[in-house]
Amino acid sequence: MQIEGKKERILLGPGPSNVHSRVLRALSSPLLGHLDPDFINIMQETMSFLRLTFKTSNPLTIAFSGTGSAGMESCLVNLLEPGDRVVIGINGFFGERMREMALRAGAEVREVAAPWGSPLDPGDLTTALREKKTKLLAVVQGETSTGILQPLDELGRLAHEQGALILVDAAASLGGCLLETDFWELDACYSGSQKALSCPPGLAPATFNPRAEEAIRNRRHKVQSWYLDVSLIQDYWTSGRLYHHTAPVSMLFALREALRLVQEEGLEKRIQRHRENSQALRCGLAVLGLKGLSRDEAFFLPTIVPIRIPEGFDDGEVRGRLRKDWGIEIGGGLGELRGKIWRVGLMGEGSTRKNVRTILHSLADVLGKCGWPEKAEDALAVTDDFYRDLDDVAAKAG
Amino acid sequence: MQIEGKKERILLGPGPSNVHSRVLRALSSPLLGHLDPDFINIMQETMSFLRLTFKTSNPLTIAFSGTGSAGMESCLVNLLEPGDRVVIGINGFFGERMREMALRAGAEVREVAAPWGSPLDPGDLTTALREKKTKLLAVVQGETSTGILQPLDELGRLAHEQGALILVDAAASLGGCLLETDFWELDACYSGSQKALSCPPGLAPATFNPRAEEAIRNRRHKVQSWYLDVSLIQDYWTSGRLYHHTAPVSMLFALREALRLVQEEGLEKRIQRHRENSQALRCGLAVLGLKGLSRDEAFFLPTIVPIRIPEGFDDGEVRGRLRKDWGIEIGGGLGELRGKIWRVGLMGEGSTRKNVRTILHSLADVLGKCGWPEKAEDALAVTDDFYRDLDDVAAKAG
Repeated sequence: MQIEGKKERILLGPGPSNVHSRVLRALSSPLLGHLDPDFINIMQETMSFLRLTFKTSNPLTIAFSGTGSAGMESCLVNLLEPGDRVVIGINGFFGERMREMALRAGAEVREVAAPWGSPLDPGDLTTALREKKTKLLAVVQGETSTGILQPLDELGRLAHEQGALILVDAAASLGGCLLETDFWELDACYSGSQKALSCPPGLAPATFNPRAEEAIRNRRHKVQSWYLDVSLIQDYWTSGRLYHHTAPVSMLFALREALRLVQEEGLEKRIQRHRENSQALRCGLAVLGLKGLSRDEAFFLPTIVPIRIPEGFDDGEVRGRLRKDWGIEIGGGLGELRGKIWRVGLMGEGSTRKNVRTILHSLADVLGKCGWPEKAEDALAVTDDFYRDLDDVAAKAG
Repeated sequence: MQIEGKKERILLGPGPSNVHSRVLRALSSPLLGHLDPDFINIMQETMSFLRLTFKTSNPLTIAFSGTGSAGMESCLVNLLEPGDRVVIGINGFFGERMREMALRAGAEVREVAAPWGSPLDPGDLTTALREKKTKLLAVVQGETSTGILQPLDELGRLAHEQGALILVDAAASLGGCLLETDFWELDACYSGSQKALSCPPGLAPATFNPRAEEAIRNRRHKVQSWYLDVSLIQDYWTSGRLYHHTAPVSMLFALREALRLVQEEGLEKRIQRHRENSQALRCGLAVLGLKGLSRDEAFFLPTIVPIRIPEGFDDGEVRGRLRKDWGIEIGGGLGELRGKIWRVGLMGEGSTRKNVRTILHSLADVLGKCGWPEKAEDALAVTDDFYRDLDDVAAKAG
C-alpha cells in the first residue's frame, strides 16, 4: 500500500512501529458510538487484554485518550498533589520529562540521577526515599533515549518500605520486555500504544492498583487536569458508564486488535523474540565496528538499540539516506545525545529477523558510501550464525 | 462492512458521526514516522485545510492530540493563569464543563447564565465584562446538550472593548455552521474531529490568533499541563519541528482526508446542507407531534436537533429499540436534561436527506409501538415537500 504515491516505510525508529494489517483493518472499521453496548464490550475486552499484557489483576486498567506522554502526565497529576514529594530517577530524556511534569503539578521533586546510558542505582533511590516523607517514586523501565533497561524487581519493595508508591514508565517496554506489574508490586504503570504493542500512536494504556486508587480517592485537591482526571475516566470505563469525553473509538478498535495479537503470539514468546532480535542486531553492529552506548548486557533494552555515531559522520545525512534509498526510518538522539547516537527500534511487528538483516545491510551500505569500511557480509554472517544457534537450541529443546 | 458480526450503525447521536469511506481508507494507510518529511507535509496540508475550515489566517492552527475536551482544556489552561478572571457563558452542559476546567486552572470564574435551551444575552455578558478587569470571555457556539446556536458576530467586539480575549467552543459547529474566526475577531477557537467534520474522535482542531499567541507568550507561570502546552506543541507543528510527543499519525491522515472532503464539497454548500436537513427534520418532527426545546428558529443549531421526550415514554427503551431494530444511534440528554430530551445529530456525512427520512420513519415506528399516534407518512410527506421546494428554488436560481 502507498501513501500519496510515497513508498511505505520500514519503521525502525523509537516509534511508531509498523503495525499488523489486522490492526489497520480494525482501525478502519465503521464507527460505533462511544456509549454503544457493542463498543462497551470492546472496551471490556480491551481492559482484559491490557491486564494480561501488564500482568496485573488491577480493575483500573484502561487506555487514556492521548499519546504516551498523556499517560505520563495523567499518572503524575493524579498521584501527586501540590507539595507532595516525589523521587524521580533520571538517566535519560523521559526521566527529565517526568521531572518537568511533576514540577508543573506543584510537587517537590527529589532527583536521583545516573549517567545517560547507565541504570539507576537502587542504593541512591533508597537514600533519597529515606531523607523525607515521600509520596511517590517514579522511574522509567525502558529509557527510549538511551536503550537502557532498568531492573524493577526490587524497587516496589524499596518504595513501600518507605511508605511511598511506585510509578513506572513502560512506554518502550510494555509488550516487548518482562513487566510484572503485580509481582513486582508496581502501583501504577503507563505506556504508549505505538511501540512494542504495534498499534498506531494516540492511546496510553495504564494501570493503577488498589493502593494507587486509594491515594487518588484520598486526594485533598481536585486533579489539575479535568481531561486526565482518572476518577472521572474510571466512571466511564467501568460500572457507571458515565459520559466523560468522546472515546477515540477507532483507535480503541485498533488497540484491541493489537493486544489480541500479543496474546495470540504469547507474551513470553514475544518478549523472547524482542530479546533475540536485539541481541542479533547488536552482534551484527559489533562486526560492522559500530558501538553501543553502554557495555553491560544486563541493562540492554530489547526494544531500542543505540548506536554511537562514528566520528566524522553526519547524523541527519545518514538517516536521510536510509529513508530515501531504503525506505527505512531510524531515530536520532534526544537531549544531550542529540547528534551523538542513532536509535534503532525493534518493536512489536518491527522486531523481526528480516528487519535485523535489512538494517544491518542498509546501514553498512549507507555508511560505506560515506567511507566506512564496509563489512556487511561479515555482519550478516554473524547474525545468521546467531539465529542458527538459536534454532538449534530450540530444536533440541523442542 | 461489519464489526465483529454486528450491524453497522447509522450514527445520529451527538458524535461520533459516520465517516466517509475515504476517511477510513486514509486512517488505515501504512504508518509514517511523526518526524518524517512526508508526514510533516501532511501536517502542513492539515493546517492549511484547518485554516480554510475555521476561516482564519492564523499561523497557529493545529490539532491537539486528544478529543474535543482536550481542546477545551488546552485553550483554557493556556489562556488562563491562576487568578485570571474569566467570564463564562453557561446555558448548557459544555458551558458548565468550561467552568469546571477554568476553576481547576485557578481562574476566577464569573458565570453568565441563561436557561438551557436559550442563547446567552449579550447584555449580560457585557455587564459581567465591565465589572472587573477580565482576561477572557468564553462561550459555546453550538451547545450540543441543547441544540442552541449562539450568535457570535458581536461578541468578539464586546470582549475586546473591555480588554478581554474571546474563546469559542466550536465542537458541534465547525464544518456545519457559519464560523467566521477572523471576521468575528475570535481570538481562540477549538473543536472536535468527530462531529460535523466526520473524522473519528481523537483530535481537537484549534486556532489561536496573534493576540492569543501574545497572551500565551506573556504568561507569568508555566502552563499547568505539559501535554497541552501550546507553545511546546507549536514548536513541533511549525518551524522548529522539535519532538514534543509522538503525533497520532493515523488520526491525522484521517483528519486531512476529512478536511479535504469539506473543501471538495465547499464550506458554504456544506453549511447550507446542514441547515436544510435540520430544518426538514424539525418540520417532520412537528408533524409527528414531537416538540423541540425552544421555539426561536434564529437559535436552532443545524447539527443537533433536540426532541422533548413525550410524557410516559422511556428514554432508554426508545433509544434501545432504535439501536436494535433499526441500527440507529441517537443521543440522550445531558445534565439537567437527562431523561428529558433525545438529541438527533445530523452532522457531517450524517446530515443527509436519506437520514432525515430514516430517523423520522424509525422514530415513528418505535414510538408507535409504544402507543404514540403514528403519523410517519404525513411527516415524510411534509419533509418531501420541504425538499421539493428547496429543489424548485435551486432550479430557478441555477
